[in-house]
Amino acid sequence: MADLETTGVRATTGAVGVTAARGFRAAGVHCGIRRSRLDLALLVSEGPASAAAVFTTNTVQAAPIHVCREHLAASGRVARAVTVNAGNANACTGPEGLAAARRTAVETARVLGVRAEEVLVASTGVIGVPLPVDRLVAALPEAAGKLSPEGGAAVSEAILTTDTRAKIARRDVATPQGSYVIGGMAKGSGMIHPSMATTLAFVTTDADVAPDVLDGCLRRTVEKSFHRVSVDGDTSTNDMVAVLAGGASGVAIEGTELAAFETALGDVLTDLAKEVARDGEGATRLIEIDVRGAVTDEDALTIARTIAGSLLVKTALHGADANWGRIVAAAGRSGAPIAPEKMTVSLGGIEVLGPGFRSAFSEDAVRERLERDEVPVVVDLGAGSGRAVVWTCDLSADYVRINASYRS
Amino acid sequence: MADLETTGVRATTGAVGVTAARGFRAAGVHCGIRRSRLDLALLVSEGPASAAAVFTTNTVQAAPIHVCREHLAASGRVARAVTVNAGNANACTGPEGLAAARRTAVETARVLGVRAEEVLVASTGVIGVPLPVDRLVAALPEAAGKLSPEGGAAVSEAILTTDTRAKIARRDVATPQGSYVIGGMAKGSGMIHPSMATTLAFVTTDADVAPDVLDGCLRRTVEKSFHRVSVDGDTSTNDMVAVLAGGASGVAIEGTELAAFETALGDVLTDLAKEVARDGEGATRLIEIDVRGAVTDEDALTIARTIAGSLLVKTALHGADANWGRIVAAAGRSGAPIAPEKMTVSLGGIEVLGPGFRSAFSEDAVRERLERDEVPVVVDLGAGSGRAVVWTCDLSADYVRINASYRS
Repeated sequence: MADLETTGVRATTGAVGVTAARGFRAAGVHCGIRRSRLDLALLVSEGPASAAAVFTTNTVQAAPIHVCREHLAASGRVARAVTVNAGNANACTGPEGLAAARRTAVETARVLGVRAEEVLVASTGVIGVPLPVDRLVAALPEAAGKLSPEGGAAVSEAILTTDTRAKIARRDVATPQGSYVIGGMAKGSGMIHPSMATTLAFVTTDADVAPDVLDGCLRRTVEKSFHRVSVDGDTSTNDMVAVLAGGASGVAIEGTELAAFETALGDVLTDLAKEVARDGEGATRLIEIDVRGAVTDEDALTIARTIAGSLLVKTALHGADANWGRIVAAAGRSGAPIAPEKMTVSLGGIEVLGPGFRSAFSEDAVRERLERDEVPVVVDLGAGSGRAVVWTCDLSADYVRINASYRS
Repeated sequence: MADLETTGVRATTGAVGVTAARGFRAAGVHCGIRRSRLDLALLVSEGPASAAAVFTTNTVQAAPIHVCREHLAASGRVARAVTVNAGNANACTGPEGLAAARRTAVETARVLGVRAEEVLVASTGVIGVPLPVDRLVAALPEAAGKLSPEGGAAVSEAILTTDTRAKIARRDVATPQGSYVIGGMAKGSGMIHPSMATTLAFVTTDADVAPDVLDGCLRRTVEKSFHRVSVDGDTSTNDMVAVLAGGASGVAIEGTELAAFETALGDVLTDLAKEVARDGEGATRLIEIDVRGAVTDEDALTIARTIAGSLLVKTALHGADANWGRIVAAAGRSGAPIAPEKMTVSLGGIEVLGPGFRSAFSEDAVRERLERDEVPVVVDLGAGSGRAVVWTCDLSADYVRINASYRS
């Protein structure tokens, strides 16, 4: 299943994740917002880095989102550091919350000796509870003291909430000027849905990229990665994806180098987005919904998202039940035009529905495929050449258990 | 909680449900599609009845939906009988499925001595499996033999699938011409969502209503009842709500009587719709989402539906957790304009969020309210006079268990 290849993900030692690229140091420490796990992440660029970010489309936006927008505008899209806390979203916290987010940036800048508008801040956790900013600020010197080019693994742990594992990705690109690296980390779990940005993700590169070029590349690649992932249909107040380009490799991204950079950035973001889907709350498997043969790509995307969002489809796949009727029914209510009698559906590489509602397959063979860690679902509408791929996970009773008991 | 009043629902003896109105007989029998439960329902009007129906908006429409449309057009919206089977949806079954649905109508007509186009047919159950129409047809004489004006309880059992109980409702209306009755039955459980019609529901009345008038009343009242219920966001291939008006009371619905009729029909449909939400697969409680203070009613409806559809809200309410942050976040991603700092949220009658993100309440007191069978959630946006009410249920681990194991 080449489409679900995950090379470069899950390396856990050495210069990985956001410290894979030269010129970045990071640290993860415990500041006391969460009981015992790492909950404060600090990422620092040696020099001024071009910065770009996309934010949640939720009308309710957490305080750090407002601060990031202000700082990117004030700095002309240049950043030196990112401070992230887990365990508290600092959302729906009013003017005090905004002050706490600003203070986080100001104190980070003071400890590092940079300007406040060069600091991005992010939070994840429970909504509506005041951020214990004193604890966070008190731990910043410790975090700064632990900054290391080997800190990529620890920092990727410090941004997690109900995630069961850290999520990192990396791509190396060789050019006539030399080679550069793009590395990243993400957190996900609940509240994942494509309306941007669906999660927290931070990517660094030692390529030399102008802020406007970086911004364009990020927006286009997020569209095909994090905007194609759905866990439960909810979109958070805090989501953001940010990328910092420090330039330490000396490779300038312009002209003919642009395409390779955008491809590699897209690969890193897609790896991270798929890891987010795979680690959805309570998930036991990654599901790839590949809709082909639609009239347009947009129709294919509408249908793929509706199938990926169907609780009945996600529970059937959790039960390894080849219930193609639920997939056809989800496509039918998507709003995009379909001719049901032309549809074909294959699960795990086995056709379970042919044209004209012809269905003959080995239940045991399909069940074995559906019980694997990665399940490709291919729906062909037989109408045109429109295509879209989205990723989701199965829906388990554990999803309910996690979310019925955890105020997040 | 007057809004959640359920007078008239769940009576289980005598002339109830679709046989509460004079002039209707019904029977429920076992024809062998399901293992042992009643699975064939027959409803008959003594004379020609005005008939109106609304159908699923899913592009994939089951064979009986096609047959009903044809028959209502051919008969000029007059019906004598309705035949319903449970255990098989007769959807995605191709030309053979359409022939099976037509044969069901033809054989029902033959047994009853009426015309085929005066018979409506409906199916519910697994998609994509050929309807065992021979068994169904073989049981029609038995069903006809059991027809009774006391058959309302049995027939309401015979249309169920994963429902845990029958759903019936009734209203009596007194007029200067005499009194008339509106009674109905419904089935629901999974695949419930407002895009019409979200379930099967059948309503009868002994009022005398012209077909066009009945059609208008049904469309308007469905909009405020079944279109305001959501269990899991899926819309079935088979959904329909049908109403038959036989006229045995002699009360003509025209002029000043129209408003009272429409109100009573709306009440019956709302009772049934709320029973469907209450009995959602795995549900432990009925949740009423009442959004007020929106700029327009349409905005209020958009927000109420997004909250009702949020898995994070539904799991929190399952856990009796006063997690207002998830409600605010759902409102924020609805697409309708909101000013989050103006929002208030009350759960079970207790305010948990005041303006300006002020939140101070007794967790124990709210938990006690959230553990009740019916939970009103009131969200006030503080922006205008737009309002909408929708009903849903909590999301439990049992929902997953039911849907991961049952091919429906």
